[in-house]
Amino acid sequence: MQESFDIRERYIPQLQKPTYLIVSLPDAGLVGSIAGEFLISHLNLKEFGEVFSHKYLPPISHIINGVAKSPLRLYHSDNFILLHSWVAIPANGLYPLSQLVTEYAEKYGIGTIISMTGVPISNRLDLDKPTPYWIANSEEFAKELESLNLMKKFEEGYISGPYAPILLESSKKSIRNIIIVVESFLDLPDPEASAIAIDILSKMVGFKVDTSSLLKEAEEIRGKIKGLMQQTRQEIPNYSGLRPYTYA
Amino acid sequence: MQESFDIRERYIPQLQKPTYLIVSLPDAGLVGSIAGEFLISHLNLKEFGEVFSHKYLPPISHIINGVAKSPLRLYHSDNFILLHSWVAIPANGLYPLSQLVTEYAEKYGIGTIISMTGVPISNRLDLDKPTPYWIANSEEFAKELESLNLMKKFEEGYISGPYAPILLESSKKSIRNIIIVVESFLDLPDPEASAIAIDILSKMVGFKVDTSSLLKEAEEIRGKIKGLMQQTRQEIPNYSGLRPYTYA
Amino acid sequence: MQESFDIRERYIPQLQKPTYLIVSLPDAGLVGSIAGEFLISHLNLKEFGEVFSHKYLPPISHIINGVAKSPLRLYHSDNFILLHSWVAIPANGLYPLSQLVTEYAEKYGIGTIISMTGVPISNRLDLDKPTPYWIANSEEFAKELESLNLMKKFEEGYISGPYAPILLESSKKSIRNIIIVVESFLDLPDPEASAIAIDILSKMVGFKVDTSSLLKEAEEIRGKIKGLMQQTRQEIPNYSGLRPYTYA
Amino acid sequence: MQESFDIRERYIPQLQKPTYLIVSLPDAGLVGSIAGEFLISHLNLKEFGEVFSHKYLPPISHIINGVAKSPLRLYHSDNFILLHSWVAIPANGLYPLSQLVTEYAEKYGIGTIISMTGVPISNRLDLDKPTPYWIANSEEFAKELESLNLMKKFEEGYISGPYAPILLESSKKSIRNIIIVVESFLDLPDPEASAIAIDILSKMVGFKVDTSSLLKEAEEIRGKIKGLMQQTRQEIPNYSGLRPYTYA
Amino acid sequence: MQESFDIRERYIPQLQKPTYLIVSLPDAGLVGSIAGEFLISHLNLKEFGEVFSHKYLPPISHIINGVAKSPLRLYHSDNFILLHSWVAIPANGLYPLSQLVTEYAEKYGIGTIISMTGVPISNRLDLDKPTPYWIANSEEFAKELESLNLMKKFEEGYISGPYAPILLESSKKSIRNIIIVVESFLDLPDPEASAIAIDILSKMVGFKVDTSSLLKEAEEIRGKIKGLMQQTRQEIPNYSGLRPYTYA
Repeated sequence: MQESFDIRERYIPQLQKPTYLIVSLPDAGLVGSIAGEFLISHLNLKEFGEVFSHKYLPPISHIINGVAKSPLRLYHSDNFILLHSWVAIPANGLYPLSQLVTEYAEKYGIGTIISMTGVPISNRLDLDKPTPYWIANSEEFAKELESLNLMKKFEEGYISGPYAPILLESSKKSIRNIIIVVESFLDLPDPEASAIAIDILSKMVGFKVDTSSLLKEAEEIRGKIKGLMQQTRQEIPNYSGLRPYTYA
Repeated sequence: MQESFDIRERYIPQLQKPTYLIVSLPDAGLVGSIAGEFLISHLNLKEFGEVFSHKYLPPISHIINGVAKSPLRLYHSDNFILLHSWVAIPANGLYPLSQLVTEYAEKYGIGTIISMTGVPISNRLDLDKPTPYWIANSEEFAKELESLNLMKKFEEGYISGPYAPILLESSKKSIRNIIIVVESFLDLPDPEASAIAIDILSKMVGFKVDTSSLLKEAEEIRGKIKGLMQQTRQEIPNYSGLRPYTYA
Repeated sequence: MQESFDIRERYIPQLQKPTYLIVSLPDAGLVGSIAGEFLISHLNLKEFGEVFSHKYLPPISHIINGVAKSPLRLYHSDNFILLHSWVAIPANGLYPLSQLVTEYAEKYGIGTIISMTGVPISNRLDLDKPTPYWIANSEEFAKELESLNLMKKFEEGYISGPYAPILLESSKKSIRNIIIVVESFLDLPDPEASAIAIDILSKMVGFKVDTSSLLKEAEEIRGKIKGLMQQTRQEIPNYSGLRPYTYA
Repeated sequence: MQESFDIRERYIPQLQKPTYLIVSLPDAGLVGSIAGEFLISHLNLKEFGEVFSHKYLPPISHIINGVAKSPLRLYHSDNFILLHSWVAIPANGLYPLSQLVTEYAEKYGIGTIISMTGVPISNRLDLDKPTPYWIANSEEFAKELESLNLMKKFEEGYISGPYAPILLESSKKSIRNIIIVVESFLDLPDPEASAIAIDILSKMVGFKVDTSSLLKEAEEIRGKIKGLMQQTRQEIPNYSGLRPYTYA
Repeated sequence: MQESFDIRERYIPQLQKPTYLIVSLPDAGLVGSIAGEFLISHLNLKEFGEVFSHKYLPPISHIINGVAKSPLRLYHSDNFILLHSWVAIPANGLYPLSQLVTEYAEKYGIGTIISMTGVPISNRLDLDKPTPYWIANSEEFAKELESLNLMKKFEEGYISGPYAPILLESSKKSIRNIIIVVESFLDLPDPEASAIAIDILSKMVGFKVDTSSLLKEAEEIRGKIKGLMQQTRQEIPNYSGLRPYTYA
C-alpha cells in the first residue's frame, strides 16, 4: 500500500456503528462527483486526510481557500468516511485504488462500501424522473437490498470504470459493497441523478439533507440543453434509416 | 498462477469420467461466446467459481441478478467444466490465460479441452449451412477425430486469437485439445454457426440440447442483413476490376 | 536521488537567513522562465552547480559563452538559491523533480520554496494590469500570506504542471512553498506577468530590481499582437452563438 | 535460451558432415519463405521439432493436416537442419532469435549457417534474370566464397531485418554465416528469385532439386502484374520531373 | 558497459601523444558522417574494432566488400581513434552511447574528444562560405580555444541530438570535448560544411588532407538545388505576411 498510495491522516476519526465508506470518483454523468461535493458542503464533513500517489495520480493539485492539496482526500461525519477524488483516476490506477479502498475499509472496520454513479441512457432528456438501481457484490447482500425496496435491481449487464474493480476486490475480501446506479446523461453532468442517489443514500446511512438545490441546478441544465436542441433541430434536417445489426 | 490469475471456487465439483474442459471466449462471429451462454442457460450449468486478474482482465464487472461478478467464470455439469468469459480477453492476457487453462486442466485431470470458434468466410450469407471443421493439437488425437467423422479436417492454414496459444500450451503438456471451427460471419454474431458447433459438442461430450432457438435467432439476423444489403445495392453501383496480386 | 538526478556543485554557497529556494521552470506564459532569466542577469546571480539526469532530462545541452552545460542549473545570491531550467521538464520527470527540490531544500535548511507562474485567462489582452494570486501548501502559511496582503488569495481551482507536485511534496515534508500566480497569456510569453511576479518576490525575499525593461518588452509584444488581431478581425467575420453546456 | 524460446525436439537427427543450418524467415520478396517451403516439400524434409515463445512469437498456430503446431519449426535432411518460420518474426524478437540460432548451431556443431533473401530493386519487372549476391560474416569466409564464384559479391550497402542480427551474432561466435541475396520485388512474392537462391544452395549443400515449378509460378505472377500495369498506364498519364536531391 | 554495448577489438592500437578520440554520428546536414567517411578513406585509417548492441543499435548490418559488420566501428591513425557510426543512433541509445564514449576515452587515456556537426540555417544556399563555431565542455578549454582563433565562439543557444550528452558526460569526467559546428543545411547532406570542419580538425589533430573532392561534390548539390528552386519559384507565387509572434 505504501509504495503506490501514501495516506496522511491528521487524526483518526471515531465513528459510530454501523460505519460506512462512501467512495466518490468522476464517472458517467459525474453522478458520484456531484454527490460527493454536495455531501462535503451540505453535511459539513470534516476533512481529515489526503492520499498521495506519484504513480497513480496525475500531477495536479486541488486548491481550496488558497491552499494546495492532493486531489484525493478523506472526509468524515459521525458514521461514515468519504473518499472523494477531485480529478479523474487514470486507467492504470483503477486496480491499485480498489486495493487501497478495501484495505482502508478493513483497517477501519467498515461495514459497507457505498458508491453512486450514472448509467447513460439515450432518452435521458425525455425522462420525468430517472430510475435508480442497485448493484451488490454478494448474493446475501442482494437479498437484503431486494427486501429494502429502495430502488430497482440492476438485472443484467456490465459496469466498467472506477467502481468495477472495487466491487470485485471487496467481494474477494467479503466486505459489502453497493453501487447506487441512476439513469443519467453520458457526457453532461447530471445533478438530478445525483439528487436521487443522495436521497437513497441518506436513508441507508441515516442522515438528513435537502437536495432541492441540485434539482434547481438540474432544471437550468435541462433548459439550456432543450434550447440548444430546438435550435439544432431547425438547422439539421432529421434523418432516419436502418442501422447495421449489432448483437445484444 | 497466483500472480497473474486468482481463482476462487465455492466448491470442488465431482465430475464423471471422461471429463471435459470447455473454454468459451469472444472470437470471430462470437461462435464460442454464444455457445457458452447457451450451454449455461439450456443445460442449467452450476456456477462454482470466478477468475480474477488485475493484470490480464479489463476493469469490467459482469452484473447478473443485481450481483457484480468477475467476467471470467467457472460452471460445471456432471462431466464437464466450462470456463466462460463474458468479455474479450486483452491481447497481453492470451498467453497467460493459456497457461491458466492447461494448469487448471491438469489439476482436475481433464481428458480433453474443447473450444468452438468461427472461421470468417466472405460468402457466409449465401451458404445454406456452414461447414464445421476440427483442429487437434496432436497427430494421435487427429487420427481419432478423423475416424469419428463428425466434421471435416481443417487441412492447412493459420489460427490466431485466444485459442491459438491454448492449442500449443496443451500440446506441450500432452493434454488433448480440439477446436470446433465453423464457417461464420467475421463482424456479426453467428448463432447458426454456434448451433452447429453445439450439436457436434453434444455428441462428443454426451448431452442433449435443442438448438432450434439459436437457428430462429439466426433466421432473424439473416433477414435483417439481407434487407440491409438489398437497400445498399440499390444505392451503391456495383463495380469490379483487377486486384493487385497477393501470394497464397 | 543519485539514481535519477546527479547534482554537481562547484562550491557550497553560504547563505544568510531566512533562506529561500526559488524554482523557475517553463510553464504557462513562460512567467517563471522569464523571471528566472531576469534574476540571473539583473541580480548578477552566481552559477555554482549543474543538475544532470539521463532519465528525466532530454538530450539537450545549453551553450553559454561557448561552453556546454546541463540545462538545469543552480545559482545563488546572498540569501536565496535559484534552480532554473533552460528547457521544459518532460512529464515523467515532474514527480522525481519534486523530490529533488524538497530533498535539496532540506539539505540547505531552506525556509521557503517560491515559484512564479501564469494562470491563462482568455481576455488577457484587454487587461490593464494582470492580477497576482498566491497558492500556499499549508493553512498556517496561508494565514501568514493573507495578512501580508501582497496579492489576492487563489480561492479555488486546480494547478497542473511542474509546480503541482512540488506543492504536495513540500507539504508532506512540512517545508513552506508558495506559488505566485499571475494572470497571463497561455501560448505567448508574458514578460508583464513576470514583472509583476518579480516585484512581489522582491518584497518577500528582500532585494531591489528594476523591472521596467520587462514592461517595455511586454509593450512591444502587446503592440504586435494587437496589430495581428486587428488584421485578423478585418478578414474573419465575427460570429457568436450558443456553446454546448459544460459543468463547473 | 529457456526463458525466451522453448525448443521441443521429438528426436536428435544424426547428420553427415559438413553440416548446415538453413534459416528461412519472411523477408523482402518472401524469397527465403518460398525457398524454405519448397525445400520442405520437394526434398521431403523430416519435421523433428517445434520452437515456442510466449514473448517473441505472435499468438498464431499453424495448422497442417488438421494439427496445430508452432509456426516456428525444425526440419532436417541427411546433412542440414532447416529452421523455418511460417509467420513473420516481430521486431522485438529479432535479436533473441539470432541468439537462439547461434546457440542452436553451436549445440549441433553446425559448420555454416545459410539464409536466402531478396534485395528489392525498382526495375525488377524488366529483368531477364535477377542477379544473386553473397554476404559473408568474416573476411576468411568471404575469400572462400569469392573463389567459389557461384554469385557476385555484395560490394557495399546495408542489410536490415531478420538476417542482419544473425550475421553479427554468428560473427561474434565465429560460426560461418552466408546470406544468398537475390534481386527481387519488394512487396510481391518472388518465386523466381527463390528458384535462383535454391539452385545456388543446392550446389553449396549438395542436393538435387528441380525448381521449374517455381519458375512457372513466377511466370504467372509476372503475367498478372504486366496486365495490371498496362491497364494502369492507360488510365494514369505518365509524368516525370525533378526530384529533391537525396544523398548516397 | 558490457550489458549495453559489446566492444570487440582485433588489437590494441599504439597511439602517439597527444591522443584524440573523434566521434562521427549522423546528425544535422550529415556533417559529421561525411567527415568521418572521408577520413576513413583519405587518411587510410585502419579498422580495428566493432561495437555491438542488442539494446541500443537497430537490427542493421553494414556490408563492406561482401562482409557484414556492425554499423558502429572503430578506426585509428597514428594519434587518434575514430568511432564512426554508419547508421543513426536511436534516441534511447544516446545517453548510453555517451557513457560508452567517455569510458572508452578514459581507458585509452584520450586527451580530447572531438566531433563535427552542422547548425542548420535558413539561408544556407546564399552563403559564400559557411562559418565554423566551437563548443567546449569546460571554461578552461574554452579559453584555450578562444586563443587558438581557428573558429568563432558559439555564443549562446542549445545543442540537441547525439553530441549533447557526450558534452555533458565528458564534462562530468573532466575529459576535454569540443564540437566543431559549421553552418549547414538541415535536411540535405552538406559536404562543404564537412570540408570546413575537416580543415579545422586537421590543424588541431595534425594531419594533412585535400578536401577539394568534397567541395566539388558540394558544388554539384548546390547546382541541383538551385535549379530545383528556380523551377519552384516560377510555379509557386511568392507570398509574404505577418507571422504569429514567437518569443526568443
